[in-house]
Amino acid sequence: MADIGTLYGLGVGPGDPDLITLKAHGLLQRVPVIAYPAPETGDSLARAITAPHLPGHQEEIIIRTPMIAGAFPANDVYDHYAREIRVHLNAGRDVAVLCEGDPFLYGSFMYVFSRFVDAGRVVVVPGVSSLGACAAAAGSPLVSRNQVLTVLPATLDEDELEQRIDSSAAVAVMKVGRHAGKVRRVLERLQRADNAWYVEHATMGTEKVLPLNEFSDAKAPYFSMILVREHEGEVL
Amino acid sequence: MADIGTLYGLGVGPGDPDLITLKAHGLLQRVPVIAYPAPETGDSLARAITAPHLPGHQEEIIIRTPMIAGAFPANDVYDHYAREIRVHLNAGRDVAVLCEGDPFLYGSFMYVFSRFVDAGRVVVVPGVSSLGACAAAAGSPLVSRNQVLTVLPATLDEDELEQRIDSSAAVAVMKVGRHAGKVRRVLERLQRADNAWYVEHATMGTEKVLPLNEFSDAKAPYFSMILVREHEGEVL
Repeated sequence: MADIGTLYGLGVGPGDPDLITLKAHGLLQRVPVIAYPAPETGDSLARAITAPHLPGHQEEIIIRTPMIAGAFPANDVYDHYAREIRVHLNAGRDVAVLCEGDPFLYGSFMYVFSRFVDAGRVVVVPGVSSLGACAAAAGSPLVSRNQVLTVLPATLDEDELEQRIDSSAAVAVMKVGRHAGKVRRVLERLQRADNAWYVEHATMGTEKVLPLNEFSDAKAPYFSMILVREHEGEVL
Repeated sequence: MADIGTLYGLGVGPGDPDLITLKAHGLLQRVPVIAYPAPETGDSLARAITAPHLPGHQEEIIIRTPMIAGAFPANDVYDHYAREIRVHLNAGRDVAVLCEGDPFLYGSFMYVFSRFVDAGRVVVVPGVSSLGACAAAAGSPLVSRNQVLTVLPATLDEDELEQRIDSSAAVAVMKVGRHAGKVRRVLERLQRADNAWYVEHATMGTEKVLPLNEFSDAKAPYFSMILVREHEGEVL
């Protein structure tokens, strides 16, 4: 009987195919099976990021998950794909699950991971997270020295957003989507909008970066972030 | 007259040389000058991470900075090295400043960056941050879905640590050093020590990972982190 295969959680970075690691690149050359999340219809971002690096002839498992804002991918969807992955592992074939950014920082890999955590070899390869990528796109250090950094989903209610942003030197608000107006309102009330950036699709061809004051849309794509730095005047 | 050179802030990742990006690797093949921080005596971690990837014959600028706990590298030290870097840029030579982890997430690059922000071409290449690397080492997702993540320096006083940890689903406490006992005390008081990990030198040969309950030292190295997850019982 063949040894059981290894399940890799492969961070593929924020979007630019050149921002995957040498380690992830090496694994992509040799795993016989890749799996990746994709919307119900349309292309997978994780697959697109790795496309230039795939040698071809891998088996591919497309994990199609309904994207419902604020809701949760159905458990039975992941149960189904976990069974498919397990067939390969049991036959001794390694499987790499591609994950945008970093697998264990808000990564979609957790839905697969939770189904294999007690079931043999799982190796997680960290990747460049969108936090650093958005800060690089904005051209400004997000957080330094002994500052506190808070990462918040834009879905929080307005009072909680305000309280949490007010108590943190550096803030990244994720998944801005239809909450852009709310986040901007909070930052203006706290007089921190002057030190904030709006970033969408960081490191991709469609990257867009604006000082928050120049961003007036009420809606943003899912892969967007608002970064808030410490007030000006700090001495470096 | 030659065009002015480009200053690169190059994230080289958390420690494993294989966790640098293809982009950083490509730049290391062609820049004529690299610069990197190092302690007053001894080796540079950033230099060690890139060592297997350097083609040789680069000029090297060693930014030797006094490491004083809680204190701040002297401005005149960085002014001095900035002048040295500027000579190369003015002569048309690109300079890559190596930075552990990600340059704009607590990265040492900011001390150089602040001296060049208005002075021509600066390009920041994001890297794998120690946050994701420590979570991968701990073998557990740090933060997911719509949870709040707080990144805290261990230098905060005990009351503030307690209040901030208590209000966050996921927490990374950085620069544990001599504050290990304090952080552990806070987590025990909050009954969150059971869901916490101690990680030092993540992804390096000297990596050490322990459930916090099994870590009893009062002192840890500078490159160490304590990760705290949401309470058990969540449904994925």
